[in-house]
Amino acid sequence: MDKFSEPIGNLIKQLSRLPGIGRKTAQRLTYYLLDTDDLQVEELANALLEAKKNTKRCSICCNYADHDPCNICSSEKRDHSTICVVEQPKDLFAMEKTGQYHGLYHVLHGVISPIKGYGPDDITLRDLLKHIGQEDIKEVIIATNPTTDGEVTANYVATLIQPLGIKVTRISYGIPMGGDLEYYDNLTISAALNNRVEMKKAKRYKDPSSSS
Amino acid sequence: MDKFSEPIGNLIKQLSRLPGIGRKTAQRLTYYLLDTDDLQVEELANALLEAKKNTKRCSICCNYADHDPCNICSSEKRDHSTICVVEQPKDLFAMEKTGQYHGLYHVLHGVISPIKGYGPDDITLRDLLKHIGQEDIKEVIIATNPTTDGEVTANYVATLIQPLGIKVTRISYGIPMGGDLEYYDNLTISAALNNRVEMKKAKRYKDPSSSS
Repeated sequence: MDKFSEPIGNLIKQLSRLPGIGRKTAQRLTYYLLDTDDLQVEELANALLEAKKNTKRCSICCNYADHDPCNICSSEKRDHSTICVVEQPKDLFAMEKTGQYHGLYHVLHGVISPIKGYGPDDITLRDLLKHIGQEDIKEVIIATNPTTDGEVTANYVATLIQPLGIKVTRISYGIPMGGDLEYYDNLTISAALNNRVEMKKAKRYKDPSSSS
Repeated sequence: MDKFSEPIGNLIKQLSRLPGIGRKTAQRLTYYLLDTDDLQVEELANALLEAKKNTKRCSICCNYADHDPCNICSSEKRDHSTICVVEQPKDLFAMEKTGQYHGLYHVLHGVISPIKGYGPDDITLRDLLKHIGQEDIKEVIIATNPTTDGEVTANYVATLIQPLGIKVTRISYGIPMGGDLEYYDNLTISAALNNRVEMKKAKRYKDPSSSS
C-alpha cells in the first residue's frame, strides 16, 4: 500500500510488529495517535525508551527491575528460605498479586523445550544454583506453567536441586493443563500455591535379575 | 499496583491509554518489548515521534500527508472536477483501496453530532467551501458513514453546496456484497429496497432467420 505517506506507513509497520496487533489495528492506532495531542505521543515514546533503558535483570533472581538487587531480593520482610521458580516476569507478578507468597523468586526467562531446541543453558539455571548457594534455602517451589515444556523444565530443575538436600515442591494442578498463569484469577493461583506437593524422586530402574 | 518497577509501570500505563488496549494487553506488550532487542523499541519510538512530527493536514483536502498539498491534490492524473467527502482519513484510504475513484477528496475530520455537541464549526466545512472555490467542481460525492451523525452531516453539506449549482450525490445504502439478507437489520434492508435500481436488460438473442 503506497497510499500512506512514508511516516504514517512506517508507524503502521512498526506497530504491526507487536504481538497480537495486525495491520488493521495498527492503522487504527496510528490514526488515533495522529489525532491525539503531541504530549501523549511523546510520553509514549519516552516510556518505551525509558522502560528499555532503565530496566535490567536483577543479578540474584533475574526478574526485571530498576534496582539491582531488586526490591524483593533486598527486602528483609521476605522469607529468604524459600524460592519460587517461574518461567517469566509476568508469572512472578501473577503470583505476587495473590499476596499469599512471601518468599523469594527466581525467573527462568524461558523453559527447556526439546522441540523448540531450548536447552538448560538457554534459561537462568546457573543463576538459580548461584542464588540457592547464597541463601539458606529450605524449599524450592516450582511454578512453571502446566504445559509440556513447563513440566520438562520442572522435572529438570527438581533433578538438579534434590541432590542438594533441599525440598522441591510443585504448585498443584489447580490450573487447567495447557493454561497460562497470567490469565488465572487470584483464588485459583492461591489454591495452586497452597496445594503444592513435594515432587517424587525419580524412580530408579531396579533390575529384577540382579536381585539375589 | 506497586509491584511493577516505575519505568515498567509507566510503559504499561502509557500503552493502556491507546484505544482497544486494556491493562492486560498493555502488560503483555510491555513484557514483549522488554524481551525484544533494543533496536525494535527505538524504531517504534522514533516512528511515533516522526509520524507525529512529519504529518500535517493537507491545506486543500485536510487529509494527513507528509507534503502540502498532498499527493492526491497535486496529482494531474486525478479528476479535479469531483470531490468525495469523507469523515476520516481511514475512510479515504478505504475508498482509495477500491481503485475505482479517481477524483479528489475532502476529509471532514469528524461529523456534526447534536448529541455529542459537535457543530458545523468542529469539522472542516470552511476548508471544503474554499476547496470547491479553487477548482471547477462538477460533482460532490458525500461518503459519510450511514449513521445518524453521518446522515445529519451529509444533509448539512448538501444544503450548503447545492445552492452553488453543484451536483451533490450520496453513496448508496444496501446489502454489502457477499452479505446475507438474514443478517441485516430492517433499516438496511428497507434502504436496499428503496434504492433498488433497474437491472440491465439481457441482450436479446437475435434470430438470424427473422432478419428480413
